[in-house]
Amino acid sequence: MKKEIYIVKIGGNVINDSIKLNQFLRAFQALDGLKLLIHGGGAKATQLAERLSLNVQMIEGRRVTDDHMIEIVTMVYAGLINKKIVATLQSGKCDATGLSGVDANLIFSKKRCFDGIDYGWVGDPSLVNVARISTFIDHGLVPVLAPITHDGQGNLLNTNADTIANVVASAMAKKYEVHLIYAFEQSGVMKDIQNPESLIKSISQSDYFELKVNGFVSKGMIPKLDNAFQALANGVSQVCIVKFDKINQLTQGHDYTSII
Amino acid sequence: MKKEIYIVKIGGNVINDSIKLNQFLRAFQALDGLKLLIHGGGAKATQLAERLSLNVQMIEGRRVTDDHMIEIVTMVYAGLINKKIVATLQSGKCDATGLSGVDANLIFSKKRCFDGIDYGWVGDPSLVNVARISTFIDHGLVPVLAPITHDGQGNLLNTNADTIANVVASAMAKKYEVHLIYAFEQSGVMKDIQNPESLIKSISQSDYFELKVNGFVSKGMIPKLDNAFQALANGVSQVCIVKFDKINQLTQGHDYTSII
Repeated sequence: MKKEIYIVKIGGNVINDSIKLNQFLRAFQALDGLKLLIHGGGAKATQLAERLSLNVQMIEGRRVTDDHMIEIVTMVYAGLINKKIVATLQSGKCDATGLSGVDANLIFSKKRCFDGIDYGWVGDPSLVNVARISTFIDHGLVPVLAPITHDGQGNLLNTNADTIANVVASAMAKKYEVHLIYAFEQSGVMKDIQNPESLIKSISQSDYFELKVNGFVSKGMIPKLDNAFQALANGVSQVCIVKFDKINQLTQGHDYTSII
Repeated sequence: MKKEIYIVKIGGNVINDSIKLNQFLRAFQALDGLKLLIHGGGAKATQLAERLSLNVQMIEGRRVTDDHMIEIVTMVYAGLINKKIVATLQSGKCDATGLSGVDANLIFSKKRCFDGIDYGWVGDPSLVNVARISTFIDHGLVPVLAPITHDGQGNLLNTNADTIANVVASAMAKKYEVHLIYAFEQSGVMKDIQNPESLIKSISQSDYFELKVNGFVSKGMIPKLDNAFQALANGVSQVCIVKFDKINQLTQGHDYTSII
């Protein structure tokens, strides 16, 4: 029988709010069994870039990562956010270890280059080192993964954290029974973000298509859901979208969105 | 018989020069056997603090680490420098993994507080997790350690990299035959920094005392040598101070300083 593992992704808006981040980390600590955390952190990188008067360039909602910006995101994601999270988890006796896709060659990516648009140092993951991640986990460590990967040529690459959660969960599913949790500020996917009653408790691929056609899915939610459905198709046992402070309460009631 | 391990510390001036850093990393890769790298990076942190118009306060040559500065050093040391080094080593097929003292609870420190001077978030190491470091090494990984530690209460602490090299080497000496190499821009300790012929090939504790009394040891060299002698007293097999691109040539001739 495969061992169970919880792979949790936490987004930038929760990370930016220290009270919410601590609530999330307490809920993460309370998760029993094997676990792995993947974090983003976009807003803090933008703040630092602005303080340094660097030009933050976006093309179709995607950040262009030039020579300066890859340094910023590496500092903020793999440095500040990663180590603050690890120090907090360690203070709660959770034996966390910070990592990025570069470390121990965990995630190999290809520099993105398509449609004539140059996104700069942005990478799409092509290989996840499951054996190495398992080594850390088998020794009782809780990996905390920052969304920086590498191309094997010495270059760091900025990589979407939702995508990393999908590819890591998908790769780990060959060896583990994986529960993939996308944690964020809302209770899940909602038809009307102002109305908590409008929480959609489960979404199938055809529901998703219908919701998109009818404009009920926000632009920011689309990449998250695309990744969620991909992970499910790749053999991940459970995929859900959950409020940051409820990730350890998945069996008690049903206040989140299940991807089915 | 104890296994041999090379513990190498590389200083900030080499890190700031990308050509020298690459030469150093090639020499480090060429070192046969078990190894571990500890890096500093002070100048880059100062540059970033200045670009952000933060006040860099020094008391008796020591950096005061306030709330802003601990974020800066964490970003620069554990983020940018650490991941750049790891990506470069990975590109040379050296299976490096970036770590700080926070990760996997590797180095526990006490916040410094003495003589009425508040150095802020500065830590003096009190415990090294040899078992965890050994786990990484036993699995073929090469730890690359950034000089950030923690107090177990969720606080990050800025810690001198020369001191980390000493305490890690000293703790590892109980289990390994440790060679501790302090690598930097010069060939070793020199009586006259302008004259390469003045290299001191070996220094005993009494030589060191005499050199200090006669003003032959520069202010910056004193903490390095203090740490070097402590490591030797703590059972480290070999301690030497070597030019950054010569660390893999310790058996070929004798162009470095041995601590005896």
